[in-house]
Amino acid sequence: MSGSIYGKLFQISTWGESHGKGVGVVIDGCPAGLPLSEEDLQAFLDRRKPGQSQFTTHRKESDSAEILSGIFEGKTTGTPISVLIRNQDQRSRDYGNIMDCYRPGHADYTFDSKYGFRDYRGGGRSSGRETIARVAGGAVASKILHSLGVKVRAYTKAIGPVSIPWDQYNYDEIFHNPLYMPNAEYAQKAADFLSDCMEQKDSAGGIIECVISGMPVGIGETVFDKLDASLAKAILSIGAVKGFEIGDGFAAASSKGSLNNDAFAAKDGKIGKLSNHAGGTLGGMSDGSPVVFRAAVKPTPSIAQKQQTVDKNGTPVSLVIKGRHDPVIVPRAVVVVESMAAITVVDLLFSNMCARMDLLEKFYCR
Amino acid sequence: MSGSIYGKLFQISTWGESHGKGVGVVIDGCPAGLPLSEEDLQAFLDRRKPGQSQFTTHRKESDSAEILSGIFEGKTTGTPISVLIRNQDQRSRDYGNIMDCYRPGHADYTFDSKYGFRDYRGGGRSSGRETIARVAGGAVASKILHSLGVKVRAYTKAIGPVSIPWDQYNYDEIFHNPLYMPNAEYAQKAADFLSDCMEQKDSAGGIIECVISGMPVGIGETVFDKLDASLAKAILSIGAVKGFEIGDGFAAASSKGSLNNDAFAAKDGKIGKLSNHAGGTLGGMSDGSPVVFRAAVKPTPSIAQKQQTVDKNGTPVSLVIKGRHDPVIVPRAVVVVESMAAITVVDLLFSNMCARMDLLEKFYCR
Amino acid sequence: MSGSIYGKLFQISTWGESHGKGVGVVIDGCPAGLPLSEEDLQAFLDRRKPGQSQFTTHRKESDSAEILSGIFEGKTTGTPISVLIRNQDQRSRDYGNIMDCYRPGHADYTFDSKYGFRDYRGGGRSSGRETIARVAGGAVASKILHSLGVKVRAYTKAIGPVSIPWDQYNYDEIFHNPLYMPNAEYAQKAADFLSDCMEQKDSAGGIIECVISGMPVGIGETVFDKLDASLAKAILSIGAVKGFEIGDGFAAASSKGSLNNDAFAAKDGKIGKLSNHAGGTLGGMSDGSPVVFRAAVKPTPSIAQKQQTVDKNGTPVSLVIKGRHDPVIVPRAVVVVESMAAITVVDLLFSNMCARMDLLEKFYCR
Amino acid sequence: MSGSIYGKLFQISTWGESHGKGVGVVIDGCPAGLPLSEEDLQAFLDRRKPGQSQFTTHRKESDSAEILSGIFEGKTTGTPISVLIRNQDQRSRDYGNIMDCYRPGHADYTFDSKYGFRDYRGGGRSSGRETIARVAGGAVASKILHSLGVKVRAYTKAIGPVSIPWDQYNYDEIFHNPLYMPNAEYAQKAADFLSDCMEQKDSAGGIIECVISGMPVGIGETVFDKLDASLAKAILSIGAVKGFEIGDGFAAASSKGSLNNDAFAAKDGKIGKLSNHAGGTLGGMSDGSPVVFRAAVKPTPSIAQKQQTVDKNGTPVSLVIKGRHDPVIVPRAVVVVESMAAITVVDLLFSNMCARMDLLEKFYCR
Repeated sequence: MSGSIYGKLFQISTWGESHGKGVGVVIDGCPAGLPLSEEDLQAFLDRRKPGQSQFTTHRKESDSAEILSGIFEGKTTGTPISVLIRNQDQRSRDYGNIMDCYRPGHADYTFDSKYGFRDYRGGGRSSGRETIARVAGGAVASKILHSLGVKVRAYTKAIGPVSIPWDQYNYDEIFHNPLYMPNAEYAQKAADFLSDCMEQKDSAGGIIECVISGMPVGIGETVFDKLDASLAKAILSIGAVKGFEIGDGFAAASSKGSLNNDAFAAKDGKIGKLSNHAGGTLGGMSDGSPVVFRAAVKPTPSIAQKQQTVDKNGTPVSLVIKGRHDPVIVPRAVVVVESMAAITVVDLLFSNMCARMDLLEKFYCR
Repeated sequence: MSGSIYGKLFQISTWGESHGKGVGVVIDGCPAGLPLSEEDLQAFLDRRKPGQSQFTTHRKESDSAEILSGIFEGKTTGTPISVLIRNQDQRSRDYGNIMDCYRPGHADYTFDSKYGFRDYRGGGRSSGRETIARVAGGAVASKILHSLGVKVRAYTKAIGPVSIPWDQYNYDEIFHNPLYMPNAEYAQKAADFLSDCMEQKDSAGGIIECVISGMPVGIGETVFDKLDASLAKAILSIGAVKGFEIGDGFAAASSKGSLNNDAFAAKDGKIGKLSNHAGGTLGGMSDGSPVVFRAAVKPTPSIAQKQQTVDKNGTPVSLVIKGRHDPVIVPRAVVVVESMAAITVVDLLFSNMCARMDLLEKFYCR
Repeated sequence: MSGSIYGKLFQISTWGESHGKGVGVVIDGCPAGLPLSEEDLQAFLDRRKPGQSQFTTHRKESDSAEILSGIFEGKTTGTPISVLIRNQDQRSRDYGNIMDCYRPGHADYTFDSKYGFRDYRGGGRSSGRETIARVAGGAVASKILHSLGVKVRAYTKAIGPVSIPWDQYNYDEIFHNPLYMPNAEYAQKAADFLSDCMEQKDSAGGIIECVISGMPVGIGETVFDKLDASLAKAILSIGAVKGFEIGDGFAAASSKGSLNNDAFAAKDGKIGKLSNHAGGTLGGMSDGSPVVFRAAVKPTPSIAQKQQTVDKNGTPVSLVIKGRHDPVIVPRAVVVVESMAAITVVDLLFSNMCARMDLLEKFYCR
Repeated sequence: MSGSIYGKLFQISTWGESHGKGVGVVIDGCPAGLPLSEEDLQAFLDRRKPGQSQFTTHRKESDSAEILSGIFEGKTTGTPISVLIRNQDQRSRDYGNIMDCYRPGHADYTFDSKYGFRDYRGGGRSSGRETIARVAGGAVASKILHSLGVKVRAYTKAIGPVSIPWDQYNYDEIFHNPLYMPNAEYAQKAADFLSDCMEQKDSAGGIIECVISGMPVGIGETVFDKLDASLAKAILSIGAVKGFEIGDGFAAASSKGSLNNDAFAAKDGKIGKLSNHAGGTLGGMSDGSPVVFRAAVKPTPSIAQKQQTVDKNGTPVSLVIKGRHDPVIVPRAVVVVESMAAITVVDLLFSNMCARMDLLEKFYCR
């Protein structure tokens, strides 16, 4: 087990290194009859593609997805969908000076310790290119969700110290700035901040927020496989994420029960909550309000400043990382967060189908 | 799948409701030869037992664990360990007025929506009593870890707004105050704050911190089953937890790469990090520094104030929750966090054993 | 992982040894709303209870099932169902002489080799008493299947050399003889054969056949989790089973394509097969014909004759096994086979629910 | 879940259809440090390649494996190994006449019933080409086993009625005849029998036997994940297999305890069995004797004779299957059986590593 398979019923099995032949994913458990094309995948992949702005690496990759199986006459057949994205711009010569030394903030040292050696070219399996496979899987999951009326939308809430207050969100703005922020003014402030960072040969982090709407009530399992717990794992499994919170999250810890509880009310016979401090889950199951969670993303560890480290023998090394690196990975990680959320929700929608005898009987005795 | 089974190699299968006959756990995958007694479990269970201070429910439960299988002559045999804790003080009459209505902040509404009906007595499966089974499992996991030199220690970092700065920790203090805080002075401030809460018929939340030391380097899988991602799921699966962060967590989002990166150095041939912003993981694998994470716990939703809600038909109801409830669940949740962390780490230590051919050959060709 | 958890969506987690406090099972994933009582379980358990005839051990066990969780007001709640059966007649003194030596045909030697030592009392975890937990799980699975119109029926086809030809089956007879054979005359012949065996201090094996009718078409997954493959594992996991075949099974190996293929035809618009050499599966999925499989059960290894073996130091030992043992386990294993089949089919019915987009949309957009 | 992922720690995720772009496998959980090349895979793939004799389809496929990931400088890195085999000779025009009708003995009808429609070209996912992915996985598993001293060897025991008695085996002969039989004379008889079949436009089945030697004692889990049960599932998951038996198998059912029990003895301090009726497992764990099992393979369902069937509307159809088909699939399935056995054994060797505290401590506290 290298832990590259995710999901229980809707399963993605990913593979690939940054400087190998390519990356890819096998999607097992996609229902039959979903219209699906390479264009559907490409639309998602293009959102994480490098080279979209001055804040992303200049590595040249078209990241073109080829579907190798599981589709017949434009529809999924119920069999595994294999997706291949070949690497193009592999310039592995850039990584010569990190062959033997451990970059701070990277997985070089832990990889060597676990496996005895590593593919030192550009992070190997721990490279951000690994997330391409997640995004291809997310594109399929999102199409399934779309047909069930569920929508997952992620965006950048904060870059470094520049954070948009929730009452100044303008969702229409998200795709109109390279940082995927729902506010043009804050996006400009964040861009200025990033320019400063780059001048200082430094990097920044940020916060990605994600909203899932249209969820049926009761999705998620009651004990270990709670919706929020499952999302937490999905999101923390993305390379640079260091924190996850749902609803009021860490702020709830200093709140009070009288303020944090969301009152129930009914309108036209439909029950709902009057507020959403909970972030859309109660007891680990979706409660009908939008599911709202946030991910904390650390600053890109690859910086152009000189850093102190050691090589594999423990000899001190003064390291300057060459190569092409994003000063911030947040904007490109937005679609990764969205993808992992979509995959997780699909899986829990599937496992929920056998929760009730009456619905089971209706399904099979139709 | 109701999602009551956790783990891949070290697996716990939990069961039980707050007002049924009892709660319990089957632990599958405990190695043979571990000395284990009911006293080992009891020591853990006593840390979450109700009635330990004025800040915990007065429900009377001895929470006595009976081991039904898997032990022979004082040692584990490698077969499943079944643990039974019978409920004693079930007073289900207290729950008459919540039979048909949905308590804010609880799983009543989502349970009904998912399953069509629910065991309305005291939260049923979503009650905090469910965590007894986790703690029994955690006691076994902790014993395994102890024999491998790994130590998991959780404590209360904050109650409501009362938060201990990290440079004022005194670990020796943890077991000397009922709130399990590592600072006597802050513990007193927190107690005062809680007394106020109770007077106002309100409740509080807080933050639990957990430190795992003695970990071998390289534990955790590289993509989806990262150590931090697995811990996040484990911790978010505990009822009232709304957030998880590792190392600098959300603070890392507004930091810079030059500050957030931990430099490597070597001393006496041993490689280590000079700081620990990462919180003990790099690329999802343990990096030799202590693993440090925090969980945000929401305020107890059961408060004695009158609350607005609806019944299952959508009719408005003015609800006053009777019964016995903790004004804060943080202190009793400390050992639950510690338990889930221990179980998760054991599982990843086990799956790590087949990571390398050389060690595999040494194991089998000994 | 000791491998005591079975199933993906409908999961049973079993525990217990022959001479410990009891045996039991936690059933996770039973849908909510199924009427279920201890009597439902007892009816199944009574079919494998010892002491029913002269051909079964005289160990006295009432094997009374206590349900500890998961039921509310007579119905399953969707949460784990914990079932406890306490051991009563534990007479472990009978096993003194096998403490250090390895009984032929038993798991003593392999248990010691794997775990370093063993609970030597009566086979411990490898005792036939382990199957009680499977039968309790099977009772629940069978109730689910009943409500979906699926029926699983197992019976004894052969005891030793006494085998009933398929054209002489009389299903009404099954419960009228202690061997659960569908033919009274053959049941008598088999009884005579067993009496001879017992006089010779010897034991016999036999063949159990199982028929599953009423299956929807298309149940089973197309590659690894085929219906027949899943049944094979389920059945071979029962202690004494040494072979599994579906449909014509081993006879198909010497048949020809023209004879072995089942022709399709339609009647009143309903498509079906004109014969059933396949045994009810095509490509691993149910094909609408009854699913028919057989299990080969070896002779009881515990015989009263003197046998040659060694102790754990390799010293030769002349062994006479005392204690109470069935001269044939086939009749008591019939309900175990039926149970494992039922559990397996329920699991595959559940996983099949997310196979098609159109049915998924109908389920969620109802 | 389409059930195309197999294994718990050593996992293969397979994909691909007979007339799509190709087939492939992602191998997750291969330990780091195993020397591995495309030639290693090719040697296995060549054993199932079509066109090797007059008894196999004349479809032209080189079945060349390309490794896309997981290897660095000739060794596995511990990350997923993705293997791609492109289809070459897809001639899908041959399948026009089966587009709407259900071939007897094939999965056409069940596929349509489960998924609503199917890729009708040559069996789609249910084609024998699916097994290419298993064989690529098996090549890797076999290399791991080789380094641990475990050897898996499969061969053809019987073709139709031509069956080699076990005392006339000559293992050196296996690779010297196109049927992979361990006896030249019987191989010739079988070839004659097959020639007759082909003249009659008919097909044949057979029996594959597999021997696993060098196994450590105690491999396999004690209840559900027994070695024999796991092998049964692995083998029955291969398309045309209809039966599985271990050791004396079905013959044990008519034997007696005194004959079927294998006596233990010791030689030079090493304990072993004097006979092997059990086939190398006791209580589901390897017992030190060779593991011996057999698989019953049905006759190829695609025959050139006219057959009666129906189309998807239930209209009767007289079907003559065109295209290129093996008159017997047994010889090409030999390496598939060997592969599935190897994969299964590797997985159980891995899960066995955490069975004992003393070995766990030795592993981590080294």
